[in-house]
Amino acid sequence: MATPTIGIVIGDPAGIGPEVVVKALLQQKPEANVVLVGSSEVVKMAVDLLKAPFEVRPIKNLDEARFTEGVLEVWDPQTLSRQDFELAKVSAACGKAVALWLDMANKAAEEGRLQATIMGPVNTESLKMANALEQIVSVETGKTYLFLITGPLRVVHLTDHIPLKQVVLNEVKKDKILKLIRLVDQSLKQWGIANPRIAMAGLNPHAYGEEEEQEIKPAMAVAEKEGINVIGPVPPDSVFRQCIDGQYDLVIAHYHDQGHIAVKSWGFSGNCALILGTPFLHLSVAHGTAFDIAWQGKADHTMMFSAIRTAASLANGNGFPKEL
Amino acid sequence: MATPTIGIVIGDPAGIGPEVVVKALLQQKPEANVVLVGSSEVVKMAVDLLKAPFEVRPIKNLDEARFTEGVLEVWDPQTLSRQDFELAKVSAACGKAVALWLDMANKAAEEGRLQATIMGPVNTESLKMANALEQIVSVETGKTYLFLITGPLRVVHLTDHIPLKQVVLNEVKKDKILKLIRLVDQSLKQWGIANPRIAMAGLNPHAYGEEEEQEIKPAMAVAEKEGINVIGPVPPDSVFRQCIDGQYDLVIAHYHDQGHIAVKSWGFSGNCALILGTPFLHLSVAHGTAFDIAWQGKADHTMMFSAIRTAASLANGNGFPKEL
Repeated sequence: MATPTIGIVIGDPAGIGPEVVVKALLQQKPEANVVLVGSSEVVKMAVDLLKAPFEVRPIKNLDEARFTEGVLEVWDPQTLSRQDFELAKVSAACGKAVALWLDMANKAAEEGRLQATIMGPVNTESLKMANALEQIVSVETGKTYLFLITGPLRVVHLTDHIPLKQVVLNEVKKDKILKLIRLVDQSLKQWGIANPRIAMAGLNPHAYGEEEEQEIKPAMAVAEKEGINVIGPVPPDSVFRQCIDGQYDLVIAHYHDQGHIAVKSWGFSGNCALILGTPFLHLSVAHGTAFDIAWQGKADHTMMFSAIRTAASLANGNGFPKEL
Repeated sequence: MATPTIGIVIGDPAGIGPEVVVKALLQQKPEANVVLVGSSEVVKMAVDLLKAPFEVRPIKNLDEARFTEGVLEVWDPQTLSRQDFELAKVSAACGKAVALWLDMANKAAEEGRLQATIMGPVNTESLKMANALEQIVSVETGKTYLFLITGPLRVVHLTDHIPLKQVVLNEVKKDKILKLIRLVDQSLKQWGIANPRIAMAGLNPHAYGEEEEQEIKPAMAVAEKEGINVIGPVPPDSVFRQCIDGQYDLVIAHYHDQGHIAVKSWGFSGNCALILGTPFLHLSVAHGTAFDIAWQGKADHTMMFSAIRTAASLANGNGFPKEL
């Protein structure tokens, strides 16, 4: 297997993105080739701020990358210059630049020239000012799915930002569940997990109710016949703790908060997020641009570190990283 | 304020209840008078097993209690003898005995002769065999509410074991929410918290949806006019972590798993449960009779310790215990 290449979009230049990317790469060289996507001038500023022993080398095309130790190669369309924006402030200029970088990275990934992309923290306001919010790879119900990775607690959500009433009435349906179970199983196998242990959460207290009988169990029965190791439906209040304790490779949750409450209440710091269902590996960090502390050298890079390690491990077919 | 008296029902004699009660009382003398309710013979067995320096003194009536240091007074109707049951086994005899003890304790509490009751771990099968399942103080939707106490994470649930569909369609209603907000505020004030900070969870992702606008916010508006400090609706995935971090005195959750996922995923060990809306303080432990390790002296008494400390602190009007 060839060494995979990960494209890391540095995020909004006015925020903590460039810092956390440089810090994360400084902490440990990933088991993959890395190309940054963004402004090489801004990356150089972050390197200087952190006194990091990296040389910054702008490249105009992805195939110019040489992946030399100690060199940060930045795929830079040179559309943004330093006087176009202020640090720690929203701006259309930053929004526009970030949108272009995301587009470059994701297109290259679709073409198979990058094996994974990571989106550094972006600013929704800046993207809106640039009319470019749609450049963010986002969740489309029934097509792509938010997958949170928090150490051993890994949760993929059947639905995202839709009302709970709609989830219960329209989304917890046999076909939709089966589609996701298959996608999860296929993805995990592709990432190097031979026999994925997929926990299926129940919808109702103690996983006991109408939807469990009429929708969830029938979907699981079909998946089981296909040889998929899907376990449950497990009581929703136990399944996440059991995953933390190592019983499963991941949990399928039915709705946004079922999974998010577990992730946020557990309080583990190394979260990252993956959009499942895209034709390539696409990860992001769970935090924002944090303008209040940007460019002061004190931003915490734990989540970016986790995203890079996870992307490298999955792209190499080594499963999830053992420790984060 | 007179020293409150707590009645601790020792739980099913065949299980770990008697052990964990004796262990918890051995760890620290509570800031309250304590009467055990159960079989004095069984309590003596637990004292002997643990080599605890307690004298066991049976009493026939509650007013015989003298609360002497080093003495465990057991209010014992003497209806169960040792040959009636086997250790670590379900039995109608134990179910029947426990049902009587619960009835004695709760009636005494209703009459004001006990300021709080704690139910040790009971066995549902044994209670069923004795046709006495209804002796457990349980949650009746719209009347009594399950209140989980897990260190700083305290959650009261608007609904308990009902389908999520029913919660969304019928239960998240202005009047029902308002009733609970008022009950929570009144209870916390009674327990010694001058200005309770009550967090109201949202129902939908990011607390953004129809029910927030039409039911939850209108209920909160009425409560606020009455001087109640109710905060929210807070995004459900953030509110529990914020409570753990000390921002609120408790969270009102809309459904069983909204609260239970947070409590169980956080993984704090000192849980206890309270039924809110009973005319007296009624607590219980979150674990069962654990027949597999019963009467071996190795049961963990953390939850019983937490229940006793919490009951004493609330009955004294001292709020929740600072550390557990």
